[in-house]
Amino acid sequence: MGYLVGIDLGGTKIHTALAAKSGEILEERVLPTLAEEGEVAVLQRIIRSVQEVVLPRGISREEILAIGVGAPGLIDQREGIIRTAANLPFEEFPLAKAIQKVFPVPVKVENDGNAALLGEYHLGERKFTKNLVYITVSTGVGGAAMVDGKLLLGAGGGAFEIGHMPLVPDSNVLCGCGQYGHVESYVSGTGIRKAMERALVSGENSSLSLETPFGTREIHQAALSGDALSKSILEDAFSYLGMTISQVLTLLNPEVVILGGGVSSIGDMFLEKVKSTAEQYTLPLLYNAAEIRLSSFKERTGVVGAVAVALEEVQKRASAK
Amino acid sequence: MGYLVGIDLGGTKIHTALAAKSGEILEERVLPTLAEEGEVAVLQRIIRSVQEVVLPRGISREEILAIGVGAPGLIDQREGIIRTAANLPFEEFPLAKAIQKVFPVPVKVENDGNAALLGEYHLGERKFTKNLVYITVSTGVGGAAMVDGKLLLGAGGGAFEIGHMPLVPDSNVLCGCGQYGHVESYVSGTGIRKAMERALVSGENSSLSLETPFGTREIHQAALSGDALSKSILEDAFSYLGMTISQVLTLLNPEVVILGGGVSSIGDMFLEKVKSTAEQYTLPLLYNAAEIRLSSFKERTGVVGAVAVALEEVQKRASAK
Repeated sequence: MGYLVGIDLGGTKIHTALAAKSGEILEERVLPTLAEEGEVAVLQRIIRSVQEVVLPRGISREEILAIGVGAPGLIDQREGIIRTAANLPFEEFPLAKAIQKVFPVPVKVENDGNAALLGEYHLGERKFTKNLVYITVSTGVGGAAMVDGKLLLGAGGGAFEIGHMPLVPDSNVLCGCGQYGHVESYVSGTGIRKAMERALVSGENSSLSLETPFGTREIHQAALSGDALSKSILEDAFSYLGMTISQVLTLLNPEVVILGGGVSSIGDMFLEKVKSTAEQYTLPLLYNAAEIRLSSFKERTGVVGAVAVALEEVQKRASAK
Repeated sequence: MGYLVGIDLGGTKIHTALAAKSGEILEERVLPTLAEEGEVAVLQRIIRSVQEVVLPRGISREEILAIGVGAPGLIDQREGIIRTAANLPFEEFPLAKAIQKVFPVPVKVENDGNAALLGEYHLGERKFTKNLVYITVSTGVGGAAMVDGKLLLGAGGGAFEIGHMPLVPDSNVLCGCGQYGHVESYVSGTGIRKAMERALVSGENSSLSLETPFGTREIHQAALSGDALSKSILEDAFSYLGMTISQVLTLLNPEVVILGGGVSSIGDMFLEKVKSTAEQYTLPLLYNAAEIRLSSFKERTGVVGAVAVALEEVQKRASAK
């Protein structure tokens, strides 16, 4: 009997799962990242999170077939190095090797967007659909695409940087990356909050005010309570995402677009606006070819993805033999 | 000794070439399409064009290894059927079979955008670059992409419909397809002409006038002669193309973007504006990874592509043996 371990390494929490060989999750553990404590402390917590999902079942190190990690930022997948990641204390950090010192098994580190896509591909409701897109909308916007059963990587592994695709010509809305008019600056949680701040500064009426901190959750609550400005700002953001998805449908002609991340958890209001806008902009043949849906893994998307990274590593090694 | 034949089937002309097995073009012939004479007449002219490149060299039918066709519109590549094509009298027309009645050799029909890309891939200056994009800007805007050495087709073969990718949010500029704000309605020869017409109707000053018909060529001439409106309209269109290319760089991370078609033949002024805008909108890592360049085949792009379609067919059959 063999097991898989998946580690979803985020800026806020480390979400780790033990899974059966099939990918079915058996144990889960969430620890705070506490990134400010530095790389050694975070690494120790990663190791501890693995021990805490493995020990309750009395599983020995030899029974772990592979460990998969999903991490934000720029990853060297081949060497298992986190090259750089906002909100994590790792810089050119050989995470795979560091984990292997304690657990001498195959360890694969993957970008969290790619991991989430692999989760949908191996374990999701539209399993093994070969032309698949995953987009996460939370603080930022990220994602990944599968083309004909293979991750879309591009020449330098930089493909599908969807958060930094230009969306609005001649925009004066600054993106976190320093350029203007990118998808993330309109569609993300940060983008939505800033749009509301701009509207309030310009004197528009709302039940929210600049005195009290707010995020997408509060804006959504205000919209539900009848605040017209909140509703309009959310609808604008969801429309922009619909247009972005239309661009993806037009270039990639996928069968499924799966949406995850905190902002997508708004649910029906989000999905309906995204779909109606995508339909309005897209050639009917391409729009009708694709199902646009919410991820069914919700807050487990990251850890399911990390398990899928481990699962794929096991499959690759088996087929290489 | 074996030969290849390539047929670039356009709405205006049929451009046919005889090539050596290497793809080197030996003979060329251009006949008018005269689409209005109907499918039988056009088919006869296609056949005649092949005979006219083959006969001067005394080549027998048995020496033709394959015939490749590049055609606009929706193509069923597997069956060699033109399903529908604007400006051609073919509707669900089994072109491969019809040609094979006269030349009983492998005949492969490919979409003209895909064909042009294959021309660059097999016979171009950046031969065998595996992540490659080709965009043609003429009356319309089309193209194709190669991802990791394979044509990007998508779930239903509809991928890379770049002319119909939405570009401008909430646009009131109508595209030929019936939707609004698509790339083609801003960037193509038709889009440029219509932008000039709108500007003249709204009373802007120009050396061009609504009384005399004009196209991209005349607008370019006027710009060269100092007409500010013409210059600004061209620059707007080229900027929009730069933004489109930025979107492609961001999603696909290609190594080369090759630009062809009549509008691109404007040359330096075109390429410089496209590149500077793409640079302005794109993550530096992705912009710097890609060379943006003009096709070196110019008005031969179509026929070189058709020859490459034949070449690839021969290679596929050889490797299948």
